[in-house]
Amino acid sequence: MNEKHLQANFQPIGYVYHDTPDTDVSRQRRVLESAIVIEPQYRLALTGIGDYSHLFVIFWLHESPAPEQLLVHPRGKDEYPLTGLLATRGRSRPNPIGLAVAELLACNLDAGELRVRRVDAYSGTPILDLKPYDTYDIFEKVSVPPWFSKNSSR
Amino acid sequence: MNEKHLQANFQPIGYVYHDTPDTDVSRQRRVLESAIVIEPQYRLALTGIGDYSHLFVIFWLHESPAPEQLLVHPRGKDEYPLTGLLATRGRSRPNPIGLAVAELLACNLDAGELRVRRVDAYSGTPILDLKPYDTYDIFEKVSVPPWFSKNSSR
Repeated sequence: MNEKHLQANFQPIGYVYHDTPDTDVSRQRRVLESAIVIEPQYRLALTGIGDYSHLFVIFWLHESPAPEQLLVHPRGKDEYPLTGLLATRGRSRPNPIGLAVAELLACNLDAGELRVRRVDAYSGTPILDLKPYDTYDIFEKVSVPPWFSKNSSR
Repeated sequence: MNEKHLQANFQPIGYVYHDTPDTDVSRQRRVLESAIVIEPQYRLALTGIGDYSHLFVIFWLHESPAPEQLLVHPRGKDEYPLTGLLATRGRSRPNPIGLAVAELLACNLDAGELRVRRVDAYSGTPILDLKPYDTYDIFEKVSVPPWFSKNSSR
């Protein structure tokens, strides 16, 4: 496959801002509120986004180092089985891409600003894409590993 | 913000393969089955993924040209209101990143191969990341625009 030599190059379309220290973001992630500010040249691309209640926020884990290993204990707990990075939602990944389903709380489209809840990104994180979450993204019966439900923090 | 000059560089961790012509992918997207083949050096990172029934598949829309405009009529229908690219799930985006919630049908971890349904990527598309979809990604009450429900194809 000659595609193997391809490299995807993306530029931030905006940034996430909030006052929560990096060390508290994971713990607070289900209540964390933040502002997403989209760069002026892309603000028109937000038109209509306020009709959705939920968004996918795709961000660049720009401060995550390259992973040293491909297996981790989920949530850092040794009692959970060694799991591959692609089977976790952790920040250490082959490509440092973050994804959150966010609640859209308010929009100020002229300012390119969205108020959102549940984006587990550190303040200052570059945004790569936003996509509306819709009814086809809801799967009510899902399977997760046995350890998943053992603790409310992930 | 000095981050504005940053550029995210990602490399494919694998590819999607199926026999459906590109022109049929959008129409078939809810039934389309495909194989995701992860590159040998990342296969260990799949460990445990088979415990999940659904995955987020993040892919690179590597053949999508840069958008010529930031507003489009959803689904190409003139009767739907002009909508910003970030408020659609279309292929034309500021950063050409695709996202699908896929059903995981089968895994062959030694071969690095996952059988999935509902990945609306053209065959040969590079995969950038996989993440498990879990119970916290389910939001049962979501709002969508009035035009969204008018047609079963998106």
